[in-house]
Amino acid sequence: MSDTVRSARPPRKIAVLGSGSWGTTFAKVLADASAETDVMLWSRRPEVADEITAEHRNARYLGDTRLPLNITASADVDAVLTGSELVVLAVPAQTLRAQLPAWRPLIPADAVLVSLMKGLEVGTDARMSEVIAEELGLPAGRIAVLSGPNLAMEIAREEPTASVVACPDHHTATWIAAACTASYFRPYTSTDVIGVEIGGIVKNVIALAVGICEGRRMGDNTKASVITRGLAETTRLAVALGGRPETMSGLAGMGDLIATCSSALSRNHTAGHLLGQGLTLDQVTVRMNQTAEGIKSAQAVLESATKLGVDMPITESVVAVLQGRLSVNDLGPRLLARNLKPEGDHAS
Amino acid sequence: MSDTVRSARPPRKIAVLGSGSWGTTFAKVLADASAETDVMLWSRRPEVADEITAEHRNARYLGDTRLPLNITASADVDAVLTGSELVVLAVPAQTLRAQLPAWRPLIPADAVLVSLMKGLEVGTDARMSEVIAEELGLPAGRIAVLSGPNLAMEIAREEPTASVVACPDHHTATWIAAACTASYFRPYTSTDVIGVEIGGIVKNVIALAVGICEGRRMGDNTKASVITRGLAETTRLAVALGGRPETMSGLAGMGDLIATCSSALSRNHTAGHLLGQGLTLDQVTVRMNQTAEGIKSAQAVLESATKLGVDMPITESVVAVLQGRLSVNDLGPRLLARNLKPEGDHAS
Repeated sequence: MSDTVRSARPPRKIAVLGSGSWGTTFAKVLADASAETDVMLWSRRPEVADEITAEHRNARYLGDTRLPLNITASADVDAVLTGSELVVLAVPAQTLRAQLPAWRPLIPADAVLVSLMKGLEVGTDARMSEVIAEELGLPAGRIAVLSGPNLAMEIAREEPTASVVACPDHHTATWIAAACTASYFRPYTSTDVIGVEIGGIVKNVIALAVGICEGRRMGDNTKASVITRGLAETTRLAVALGGRPETMSGLAGMGDLIATCSSALSRNHTAGHLLGQGLTLDQVTVRMNQTAEGIKSAQAVLESATKLGVDMPITESVVAVLQGRLSVNDLGPRLLARNLKPEGDHAS
Repeated sequence: MSDTVRSARPPRKIAVLGSGSWGTTFAKVLADASAETDVMLWSRRPEVADEITAEHRNARYLGDTRLPLNITASADVDAVLTGSELVVLAVPAQTLRAQLPAWRPLIPADAVLVSLMKGLEVGTDARMSEVIAEELGLPAGRIAVLSGPNLAMEIAREEPTASVVACPDHHTATWIAAACTASYFRPYTSTDVIGVEIGGIVKNVIALAVGICEGRRMGDNTKASVITRGLAETTRLAVALGGRPETMSGLAGMGDLIATCSSALSRNHTAGHLLGQGLTLDQVTVRMNQTAEGIKSAQAVLESATKLGVDMPITESVVAVLQGRLSVNDLGPRLLARNLKPEGDHAS
């Protein structure tokens, strides 16, 4: 399929692999964007697929949200992938690599892949777009990522939301953006895949720090300072990896960070809050019925930074708390207690 | 007094002109920073001065907060200014120019001035440091500004807070920073007076926009997008005026904006919220018993931007709402409804 053809019309069929809250919500965006497009969700569990197809809802993740009629679902990944021009990946970040080899032969030869996933792979420190490229043997121009201030539940309620689609091939980014433009969802385009992915990953770690400060009953002044310094260290890492600073000042950097740190809907923010209130990491995981992605990615983020010689004091402090080497009582004071010096001097 | 002497010891006496919530709170910071320093507050009303001196509190603005014993107050500005090495200005922005001529002969010849005020002068579009320089005939190296994520009530409660002191003379900035370093208050230094002032001014306008969106019950995704785009337009204005982009990514730019837009304590944020709920501008002013600074500065900010050819769509929309030319219902959709395009392309 040439770029010209791709730009001219919406995809006839889109596969969304993963039927959690974000995968299902984004399927709704795609379906609302074009009534002519068939959006097909893959769910690991047949009963979830049946509920989506027969009842047009995914009660566990999206409550009573009614899904458009051009969404169907199946537990058979082959049926979902066949004929799909766009393949959206929305599975848990740490499980992606193990699943891709089985999917590789089923993905249509000219399909474009879009990652909704936010995490660094533990062990390799790889971004999700890198895992996709390695396991599927695809060129960078056929792999895109989408990220922004995108709390799924708000989008499911059709509250106005902006986002960023990044792909090194600008035409592909534009084609995807058109395919996911709904009345309530506005995607911007970018060619900075690294920046957009790093913004989406590190914000979960910073949200843990902000949650911990809130759990310790520190106020909005402290919280705003931690968010500000958190974006600064995220930007340092993104730039060291080849991303662009302006991406970090945009919706996928600052925007996503603020939405995540403001919202009671964010799992990472909530996990930090519980840690700040004095719960142990195990207690938080039990209470939340899952491990927040920031808890899994924090160590990988710190390892990447250390390899590149990038100073990330907030991430370092969060890892120290998660490993039991720093008390939640000492986190806030440690983040603010630096010697008087010019702002922007990050040497120490 | 040479810089060397100035750096070596805290000021013996500091004058704070203005005993509202921020002036009184900052006087407490200065007094807590050094028990050897006499901090003297000027209040227009003798009964407030008496309460501060005799009862060590300013009940109207800070409730039961106990003020340190090395703070006294007077309604006699001559007594307050005599012998002061540092003069802190914390009066309403729009009244400053009218007050300075009477104070000019009373200000000690080598005193350093610090502005806590956040506003552009209506009519002249002048920043407060410019008004001070013009009316007092002082060189830029003796005029500093302080701004950051500094909700006064949180500082009065001694919650950990960071801030930025900016002065073109780095030694002076460092001396002031030392004079206001308390256990709960950490000032950083900068030489970018323009950036620090513009951050403190425009954030009030953006907070109005965010408040309006909240009043219309839009969610955290929208709010995060408006804050992100708001900082982008603030940065464009600051840079056009000669400020530095990195200041806008720091505590006095992004940090102050986030604190203001997050907090229920912000007057501008609250005013926007009431507008968003459908109150008229007059009703908001009556309800709040005052006009929020952002309402006064918005037009001046837009005029500055227009003169410089800087695109500020959020400020423009806020001014249109304040002038009754745009409905609060149309503000949010207008801010998100732009054509699909690369993020960062601000040409249209």
